Amino acid sequence: MGNNDCEYPSANVGSSAATAKHHRVAIPPPQPFVKTFQYSLKETFFPDDPFRQFKNQSPWRRLVLGLQYLLPILEWAPRYTLDFFKSDLVSGITIASLAIPQGISYAKLANLPPILGLCECSDNNESHIAHSSFIPPLVYAMMGSSRDLAVGTVAVGSLLTASMLGQEVNFNENPSLYLHLAFTATFFAGVFQASLGFLRLGFIVDFLSHATIVGFMAGAATVVCLQQLKGILGLDHFTHSTDVVSVMRSVFTQTHEWKWESGVLGCCFLFFLLITRYFSKRRPKFFWTSAMAPLTSVILGSLLVYLTHAEKHGVQVIGTLKKGLNPLSITDLVFVPPHVTIAIKTGIVTGIIALAEGIAVGRSFSMFKNYHIDGNKEMIAIGMMNVVGSCTSCYLTTGPFSRSAVNYNAGCKTAVSNVVMAIAVMLTLLFLTPLFHYTPLVVLSAIIISAMLGLIDYEAAIHLWKVDKFDFIICMSAYFGVVFSSVEVGLVIAVAISVLRVLLFVARPRTFVLGNLPDSMIYRNVEQYTNTNNVPGLLLLEIDAPIYFANSNYLRERISRWIDEEEDRIKSTVETSLQYVILNMSAVGNIDTSGISMLDEVKKTIERRGLKLVLANPGSEVMKKLNKSDFINKIGQEWIYLTVAEAVGACNFMLHTCKSNSNAKDESTDSTWNV
Amino acid sequence: MGNNDCEYPSANVGSSAATAKHHRVAIPPPQPFVKTFQYSLKETFFPDDPFRQFKNQSPWRRLVLGLQYLLPILEWAPRYTLDFFKSDLVSGITIASLAIPQGISYAKLANLPPILGLCECSDNNESHIAHSSFIPPLVYAMMGSSRDLAVGTVAVGSLLTASMLGQEVNFNENPSLYLHLAFTATFFAGVFQASLGFLRLGFIVDFLSHATIVGFMAGAATVVCLQQLKGILGLDHFTHSTDVVSVMRSVFTQTHEWKWESGVLGCCFLFFLLITRYFSKRRPKFFWTSAMAPLTSVILGSLLVYLTHAEKHGVQVIGTLKKGLNPLSITDLVFVPPHVTIAIKTGIVTGIIALAEGIAVGRSFSMFKNYHIDGNKEMIAIGMMNVVGSCTSCYLTTGPFSRSAVNYNAGCKTAVSNVVMAIAVMLTLLFLTPLFHYTPLVVLSAIIISAMLGLIDYEAAIHLWKVDKFDFIICMSAYFGVVFSSVEVGLVIAVAISVLRVLLFVARPRTFVLGNLPDSMIYRNVEQYTNTNNVPGLLLLEIDAPIYFANSNYLRERISRWIDEEEDRIKSTVETSLQYVILNMSAVGNIDTSGISMLDEVKKTIERRGLKLVLANPGSEVMKKLNKSDFINKIGQEWIYLTVAEAVGACNFMLHTCKSNSNAKDESTDSTWNV
Repeated sequence: MGNNDCEYPSANVGSSAATAKHHRVAIPPPQPFVKTFQYSLKETFFPDDPFRQFKNQSPWRRLVLGLQYLLPILEWAPRYTLDFFKSDLVSGITIASLAIPQGISYAKLANLPPILGLCECSDNNESHIAHSSFIPPLVYAMMGSSRDLAVGTVAVGSLLTASMLGQEVNFNENPSLYLHLAFTATFFAGVFQASLGFLRLGFIVDFLSHATIVGFMAGAATVVCLQQLKGILGLDHFTHSTDVVSVMRSVFTQTHEWKWESGVLGCCFLFFLLITRYFSKRRPKFFWTSAMAPLTSVILGSLLVYLTHAEKHGVQVIGTLKKGLNPLSITDLVFVPPHVTIAIKTGIVTGIIALAEGIAVGRSFSMFKNYHIDGNKEMIAIGMMNVVGSCTSCYLTTGPFSRSAVNYNAGCKTAVSNVVMAIAVMLTLLFLTPLFHYTPLVVLSAIIISAMLGLIDYEAAIHLWKVDKFDFIICMSAYFGVVFSSVEVGLVIAVAISVLRVLLFVARPRTFVLGNLPDSMIYRNVEQYTNTNNVPGLLLLEIDAPIYFANSNYLRERISRWIDEEEDRIKSTVETSLQYVILNMSAVGNIDTSGISMLDEVKKTIERRGLKLVLANPGSEVMKKLNKSDFINKIGQEWIYLTVAEAVGACNFMLHTCKSNSNAKDESTDSTWNV
Repeated sequence: MGNNDCEYPSANVGSSAATAKHHRVAIPPPQPFVKTFQYSLKETFFPDDPFRQFKNQSPWRRLVLGLQYLLPILEWAPRYTLDFFKSDLVSGITIASLAIPQGISYAKLANLPPILGLCECSDNNESHIAHSSFIPPLVYAMMGSSRDLAVGTVAVGSLLTASMLGQEVNFNENPSLYLHLAFTATFFAGVFQASLGFLRLGFIVDFLSHATIVGFMAGAATVVCLQQLKGILGLDHFTHSTDVVSVMRSVFTQTHEWKWESGVLGCCFLFFLLITRYFSKRRPKFFWTSAMAPLTSVILGSLLVYLTHAEKHGVQVIGTLKKGLNPLSITDLVFVPPHVTIAIKTGIVTGIIALAEGIAVGRSFSMFKNYHIDGNKEMIAIGMMNVVGSCTSCYLTTGPFSRSAVNYNAGCKTAVSNVVMAIAVMLTLLFLTPLFHYTPLVVLSAIIISAMLGLIDYEAAIHLWKVDKFDFIICMSAYFGVVFSSVEVGLVIAVAISVLRVLLFVARPRTFVLGNLPDSMIYRNVEQYTNTNNVPGLLLLEIDAPIYFANSNYLRERISRWIDEEEDRIKSTVETSLQYVILNMSAVGNIDTSGISMLDEVKKTIERRGLKLVLANPGSEVMKKLNKSDFINKIGQEWIYLTVAEAVGACNFMLHTCKSNSNAKDESTDSTWNV
């Protein structure tokens, strides 16, 4: 059946394949299994190659480098200048002014002291509010690799702590146990965060995609705003659920409890805060108006209450706060059942959420200033600051977005701004706490609402819709999941859809027909390049994903559908009948055994239809496996070409010189091409 | 800073880019959202395009085609010939001889009648054993699209039914309820299977990869073999757990209960069965010895017991079976709590496992004979046969591998062999049941063991190890999961690892450096093609996966590491310093918004190092999104090339004509390249 030229075209056949006369698709040189395994492990867990700098160094230098790796402060402290300190001082004081009222508000969200102070418990009524702005920033300043992250408590973390601990321990019945559990949860959150860093599992955080974070933050902000209706309306009883339905029911079933004095005061302060924010955004020079506004509001509100005795007319106030430095709380940690379970659970959930926020915030600002953030190092720093914090009466801290943004705007240079903030907060706590007695809760609610409104980034959502519909769906499901159910549900749904997207990419890979760009040897997707010409007698297909178990059935179906469609199309024209199917494997990153069986089936099916399967440019992983599974010999190495152009050249050569043979195909369908 | 030629090289610059003078990377023509959405839905749920044949047909023809789609028998029955029937008759009788003892053995596994018959319950002691070989094959013959699948009960399905129902209902205490629940579970399994087909969710089955099936089948076979120790050793009490530890403990704690007569008989028959199998494999002519051996064993065993009264010496027998046709069991189905929950759960689990086996078996043989199997159609057929079966006293059926293999070997042509089998079984049941009274249980155990040993495909496992280590891990985890824990655990672990592999492919994509193949314009992976030359001043990188949230952080790190390594390498040589980083995007199938931000960051980082980012050959999806997100304008459309060769040509042109400008880079790092 034909001469040898027809059945075994070699790569140097055909004039259009002339550019690469003597190149064949190479089977990559065999690697010992241990080596490839080590390489995979390294790429999976050490993509940043942390040991690289230790190479070829003296032992002493290695020790220094190791310490610098663990404590980045050793790296930058020697280069610290007075100019840096000036910038850090300004930004540190600015964020301290934000930290005190924010600390009070968030502690309130977590049901932690201020309120403990309010209900006059005898033990532990220290002002934990701002402790979390003291010890953890010092730890972070030593270990963190971000220069802009301002350490503090966050609304979502506080809210989650309250809602999860609240399921097991009623705060009003046992405030002391509740407080100890909050410390314990913080401890476990820290341990969990640091272990993720030590285990090099930083990449888990990557699964919270940009779209998820946008939706999640907007949803959390909405939920937190709705929660503040309690403070704004001066309600005594309120639902513990966070979903919008429960909150609305709770608000509108007790309209008779609404206190108009509280509402009016709240709206005034909210208006004031939003106005200052508006100005600071319009004129970057006035950035400090927005930064100072919360503290100003607290002072104004407290003065107002003190002068008008509004606390007797429906405006709730914080009450007594005790001065003092952080007491040790290491003995308060609860490590025995039954309560340790809920503490571990709360710790892990809040830990991962706080971590996601802290790292995302750190990364955003490092991007602006173009320096490097190490996810695993950040995890260890944030984890250690929570572990140390939990032993010194602090609850969960991370890098809140709003505070870090102010820090960045105020021109901070290093983590020293965190140290300045810590000292400023401590001085305030030692000498100024009595002033907070008259601070109205409604002002704190207004501060929270105004901070939250900035987190609802509807422009980002519109951008997502414009650029990527699937990301928009992920964003919206995170938002609605958080708003209508709970923070955890929203996150899980969004991550599940994100993962589904990845699976769908592999399960339903795009396949497309290639055409020839006029006057060139380039073959491209006919849908993208509308000016391409198809090559008579050949069907050029490209697969855009690895060939795995999840798509091997689909690809088999799809390839035969492409052939059906092509043959239908040719029937209605006078073109040469289909003879060759060229699969461009350039974009096939990997293949598994199911995929190899699929290729085998496709080859058999195609040959039974009297056609010939030709492969173009399989990559190293694919070549390695095709070789090991003996598929290369089944298809014949001479049917695997380095480029699509060469494959087309060889097939065209065959088509034209062997026309008489290929006409014989109709009589003996099966025997022509079985090499 | 240089003339225009240097900062805006156009595609027709550089002699080596001459082949494609006037082609640019095209932004695919915009498509209305509804259209792309419809396309995605179609590719996801209708990859086989079932409506294609209905196009341009008369209404009558459409009705016929629709009926043929639902009942494939209408398609092939008109073409059925006497020759076909002869083949189908032979194969039908052959599988019937296998079906009767297999049916008895598997029913025993499921704790269903034979044993019900043994314990002399007054109601429902019909011989459900072989009913499952009567009605369901008839249904499948009409609706199924496989020509080789032989319908029957399967060991794993039977075992699962017993273990799951056994958790809730003790068979010995309430056999009637147990039986009704088995029917109900079968009903729900059928409904579930058919719904998957109607909802076009056939692709779920694809997630049971080849490797998973190999490990799972071997594991299930091991477990089933171990369970048979009860029958072989003639034990009365036995664990209900299936894991190897429990079974071994159960066997070796009651060594005093072992009955040597039973053991000897069992070993003899097992030896006989294995010998016949060996011969039928060595000589294809004797395939029937293996097919007839089970029935022969049953007859021989029964005769032996009848003649020697071995039932009084430790050899357990089946006992009385009642003759008769399938009674209707539709009124027995249990649709009320509390038991309906376990029935639904059992139905779904056994349904999906039976489906996986049925479709895998159907596909394997359709591959041999090269015809088309429609997954969704098969799901509906298998589902309907279980729904109808559950109403006529049958329990879970699918296409067992062993029986289908015998059917195929015996030369069946169509599903008529199933009809023949059904009739042959029914005749046996009507006239020959009393003969089964003396059938020793130990023979049934021997039959099961011999069938199971064939399913442990260690050669496939070795092949997996050779070709794909990850597939081997999946296979082994399925095996050990099934053996050491349970069938469900094994399956879940294997599927989870399979999915993890897909996620890992995307989360840790391979990036590699490209080099120039000598005397060509082709650029390929330097690890695969060891004879490539690197291009001075340029770093050519290729990414082998979509750029998604899961890998955007990794890719950012990895790209800067590649640049670091390249610059380190150059430092030690006298080569031109690095000027351009060319990213080959050919294999990047898609990008999301996180990926676009990453590219943006990479561009900024690269430019801050005084280098320039160049893209080569982004695909249609990527181009569309880069365009919508305005990244194309940020990077400059003139820095996106159609091929790597063109990009290299343009960069080389820039390097050589603008050398003086690029030397200025060292003084003003930032301003040279900000286009």
